[in-house]
Amino acid sequence: MKQVPIGVSARHIHLCKDHINLLFGAGYELKVLKNLSQPGQYAAEETVAVIGPKGRFDKVRILGPARGKSQLEVSRTDAFGLGLNPPVRESGNIADTPGIKVVGPAGEVDLAEGVIVAARHIHFHTDDAARWGIADKQRLTVRVNGERPLIFEDVVARISDQFALDMHIDTDEANAAGVKTGDHAELIL
Amino acid sequence: MKQVPIGVSARHIHLCKDHINLLFGAGYELKVLKNLSQPGQYAAEETVAVIGPKGRFDKVRILGPARGKSQLEVSRTDAFGLGLNPPVRESGNIADTPGIKVVGPAGEVDLAEGVIVAARHIHFHTDDAARWGIADKQRLTVRVNGERPLIFEDVVARISDQFALDMHIDTDEANAAGVKTGDHAELIL
Repeated sequence: MKQVPIGVSARHIHLCKDHINLLFGAGYELKVLKNLSQPGQYAAEETVAVIGPKGRFDKVRILGPARGKSQLEVSRTDAFGLGLNPPVRESGNIADTPGIKVVGPAGEVDLAEGVIVAARHIHFHTDDAARWGIADKQRLTVRVNGERPLIFEDVVARISDQFALDMHIDTDEANAAGVKTGDHAELIL
Repeated sequence: MKQVPIGVSARHIHLCKDHINLLFGAGYELKVLKNLSQPGQYAAEETVAVIGPKGRFDKVRILGPARGKSQLEVSRTDAFGLGLNPPVRESGNIADTPGIKVVGPAGEVDLAEGVIVAARHIHFHTDDAARWGIADKQRLTVRVNGERPLIFEDVVARISDQFALDMHIDTDEANAAGVKTGDHAELIL
């Protein structure tokens, strides 16, 4: 049985260096609150507020380190609350996505684009992928046997020797299945 | 292909006659805002506020007519917002579920129990069930081919000559699949 640990992503934001400077002050460095399952990635101590046309969320967690482009990842439920209709996208693919206002302690930024609902995906270390015969970008089918069992189709495989085995779903998906971070999914196809 | 229309249930409340009287005044009659897919069921014009230990929702829609017992149906996401941990249950099965404070224009009620996350289910008219060979309470498998395709297992069949064919899922499930009311699901088992 090909078991994969589940990581549930709550709403969070990735920021580019320029935006960190604008939101927190020139030369500001994010502080590590907690390391994440993917090597080198961390939840920062810092949070920001995001303000959409219909609603806002305070204390949105920043995930570090800084990225090339700022990107806010929300669930569809969150998106309705903000009054936005972002597409389901793979991380980093933010062309033609909605923007949003981001507010930090030292300033604010109007993102022109960058709001997405993250496409569910599995991070595979190169060795795991080789062992199970999985190709990068392959679409997988995964059974999640929580309180409300379901099968996710179209789960994107992402492979790197920098990755640790982990399936990332958002809070809507986790709640629809009745699972939480640390539960396991079964790769069935 | 066995196609079933999807109805997405947002958070809502069913009230018993006594609680309608306490919340809206003695002898109060709910007004019909909109008829629902199930014959005789309607969304009322009236709403109430519900207040949990961590948060509240204003303007929670009442679904009529009055029932024997009051029952608040929320998504898991809603439940986190309220600070409650209700079980996934079939409608009407509210023993040992959390309670909540309900506030109306004429008074308030502390429900001792009645908060559930509704188990996904399909209403079948007796004729639909007979044609497809489905038994009451049977657990079904249903493919939902939305923006984020997935397969729901453990979908409860409910059969009555008072029902119209409709699959009821909550907002977490709808958002996880990327579907809305009026889309169709495919019964595969």
